[in-house]
Amino acid sequence: MASVKVLGILGSPRKNGETYKLLRVALHAAEKMGAETRLVRLYDYNIKPCIGCVSEDVKKCKYPCDILGDDFPQLAKMVLESDALIFATPIYWYMASGVMKNFIDRLTCFENMIHHTGRSLLEGKVAAFIAVGNDTGAIMAISWLMVTLNSMGAHIPPWALAYYHRPEGDVLSEENALLDAANIGKIVVQAARLLKNAGEWYDAGLKKLVEEAVSELRGRA
Amino acid sequence: MASVKVLGILGSPRKNGETYKLLRVALHAAEKMGAETRLVRLYDYNIKPCIGCVSEDVKKCKYPCDILGDDFPQLAKMVLESDALIFATPIYWYMASGVMKNFIDRLTCFENMIHHTGRSLLEGKVAAFIAVGNDTGAIMAISWLMVTLNSMGAHIPPWALAYYHRPEGDVLSEENALLDAANIGKIVVQAARLLKNAGEWYDAGLKKLVEEAVSELRGRA
Amino acid sequence: MASVKVLGILGSPRKNGETYKLLRVALHAAEKMGAETRLVRLYDYNIKPCIGCVSEDVKKCKYPCDILGDDFPQLAKMVLESDALIFATPIYWYMASGVMKNFIDRLTCFENMIHHTGRSLLEGKVAAFIAVGNDTGAIMAISWLMVTLNSMGAHIPPWALAYYHRPEGDVLSEENALLDAANIGKIVVQAARLLKNAGEWYDAGLKKLVEEAVSELRGRA
Amino acid sequence: MASVKVLGILGSPRKNGETYKLLRVALHAAEKMGAETRLVRLYDYNIKPCIGCVSEDVKKCKYPCDILGDDFPQLAKMVLESDALIFATPIYWYMASGVMKNFIDRLTCFENMIHHTGRSLLEGKVAAFIAVGNDTGAIMAISWLMVTLNSMGAHIPPWALAYYHRPEGDVLSEENALLDAANIGKIVVQAARLLKNAGEWYDAGLKKLVEEAVSELRGRA
Repeated sequence: MASVKVLGILGSPRKNGETYKLLRVALHAAEKMGAETRLVRLYDYNIKPCIGCVSEDVKKCKYPCDILGDDFPQLAKMVLESDALIFATPIYWYMASGVMKNFIDRLTCFENMIHHTGRSLLEGKVAAFIAVGNDTGAIMAISWLMVTLNSMGAHIPPWALAYYHRPEGDVLSEENALLDAANIGKIVVQAARLLKNAGEWYDAGLKKLVEEAVSELRGRA
Repeated sequence: MASVKVLGILGSPRKNGETYKLLRVALHAAEKMGAETRLVRLYDYNIKPCIGCVSEDVKKCKYPCDILGDDFPQLAKMVLESDALIFATPIYWYMASGVMKNFIDRLTCFENMIHHTGRSLLEGKVAAFIAVGNDTGAIMAISWLMVTLNSMGAHIPPWALAYYHRPEGDVLSEENALLDAANIGKIVVQAARLLKNAGEWYDAGLKKLVEEAVSELRGRA
Repeated sequence: MASVKVLGILGSPRKNGETYKLLRVALHAAEKMGAETRLVRLYDYNIKPCIGCVSEDVKKCKYPCDILGDDFPQLAKMVLESDALIFATPIYWYMASGVMKNFIDRLTCFENMIHHTGRSLLEGKVAAFIAVGNDTGAIMAISWLMVTLNSMGAHIPPWALAYYHRPEGDVLSEENALLDAANIGKIVVQAARLLKNAGEWYDAGLKKLVEEAVSELRGRA
Repeated sequence: MASVKVLGILGSPRKNGETYKLLRVALHAAEKMGAETRLVRLYDYNIKPCIGCVSEDVKKCKYPCDILGDDFPQLAKMVLESDALIFATPIYWYMASGVMKNFIDRLTCFENMIHHTGRSLLEGKVAAFIAVGNDTGAIMAISWLMVTLNSMGAHIPPWALAYYHRPEGDVLSEENALLDAANIGKIVVQAARLLKNAGEWYDAGLKKLVEEAVSELRGRA
């Protein structure tokens, strides 16, 4: 069985809060599936904000990122070494926390390697998502994370989401959220095993095939 | 090589519009990958709106749906027979068209089989998305479709999106959108092959594992 | 005191469901503020889907809409006669119901009068939003409705939203949701009174002012 | 004519980039309407991330915020002194930049004064939005900002949005975006004048009215 590494990325300031707990449940399930897991708390790291080099010159943005003097390089290394990523965020104003947003912005240097080597450094990794808050917004935060990671090249396996959005109470009594979180851990490992060594996904060489299709469509018109 | 069936679902009223064209490019690529493809135009079918039985009694909603006298059963059959689904929608007010929304609402009867058999009828199918408009909104429409299909049990492979959002002009001259669309066709087939016979994903039997994780977390607190 | 007309637009199939109840609370408050109110259930009307004429020729879409043989004209008349609109939708897959989406799509003929007379027929009307479901998605549905109505020219007054997203129970026991709904009714009337006779908002004649700003910015560069 | 202060809040790292330019056009129009304007660049300030006190104890979060040793107090003062706020963000991954997200998270201390004095410090202010990027996502970023500011108590006047989403070129040649930006400046001043001294909006004292409505609805059932 292929070895699988799962990284849990916590975007909450609370070390043992509800977001952390759901993430721990997911990682526990991943471990039971035989994966190696690691949990990283973004609030423990100094992550400078992205300065959007790509908007000036698409070639300027690459990995490793030009921004110096912060802790992003350590986080980047953990991401690159992982087969699956579980993003767990508190819901701040119906969206991922600012710290999580900053971190996602910085992942641009992985995705933008497309313009250097033809390949995103996140392509083929498996991603899943946890959001916890005391109000609505879980799915808005998760849908944003999901479409972003997919646009960076990640697989989103079935049921790649767990959330909790009650004003009070304890996530550890919330059976559905716990079961969904455990399934995230199970499913990312299952998917990562099936997809490991799947080779490349995006093929910039399909241009000829595009030409065929275009000429067929023009012919019909 | 496992045989793969790809269904293109068109939510546009234009038979040969820009949305149709991108979808055709995707299906052309899928065919070149050896898949069997079919394109269905939702506007050609009478699809009554969902009446939300699930909000009264979660058991009331099941496949086949209770709503009678429309064409949904034919569409449902096509969806069930497919390994991969490509949803292609025009962008109406930054979102999928009303006709596409109605269709998605009706898919609830597939997903809700969880409450009858423990399994969504869409689980493990591969899904991808195309959105075309003359204004912004592509990613809002796609992120909604993506998180919805994933919540119904679909696998979203890397780069499962293509869009075009220019006020004028011809999508057939838009190289990036065409290449992305072709890759959708290629990638859904590639993913469907790898994941066919992957077995079940969501496991409602993880409750014991949840209990372990919960008791560990309670112990720490 | 200026007379104010408030239209409650119900996108739920349930005549007396939870969405209806929150809408009734809002309309009750509007009546207490002295407004004339009306509640319309979209499911009682036959509304054909938008066919996106605007994507072929921006001038083709105008009010009254070219689509014949359905009940949209009656609904259109009610909208035009109102000073404030409260959109109340059940949450189907984290979004407005398909029936509500279809209705919103058809409002394009009001907004698109910009391209005929320079003025959207919805400009200056006041809009607010209610979403009810047994799962997450309230804010995704509401944010979509809000940005759409604002893009059609509507004014969104403070706290123009109320929602309820619990799996069970009775919205009539949910104090916060009820209070928010009542405030919607109060606030849309308050705003409509202040803004009635406010004159025109969007000014296509600002081109000279734009030129000044552009030349100043070019000068600096 | 009531004096009006407009604050432009720039969430871009580029001092003179495309986002800045659209914001300048909006502020130019506001000045021509007689408003006093100010532009603040968030990247010039050290803004520590929100630590979500509200999730522990709703009373713990208040203005001034407990977080010490950063520049938020200066920004907070500017916000409080303004009648209208124009949020201008680059589009990073279909959403506001991380720096803008962090800033919005910190505004919680204004909104949460509801739990101390019954009143959000942002209630009644007018808000509008600008988003600029080289890809899709403008409306996803803007809809999130819009629903968030509205939930904090801000008015969103008609057409409160301007955006630009082309891969290349110069926003100063983009007539529609420029005209929309100028209208933002014009409209926020127009709205702020009409709404200044409008008094309070949310009324927590509507409980009696809620009871009436509830008892009427229960009577019918």
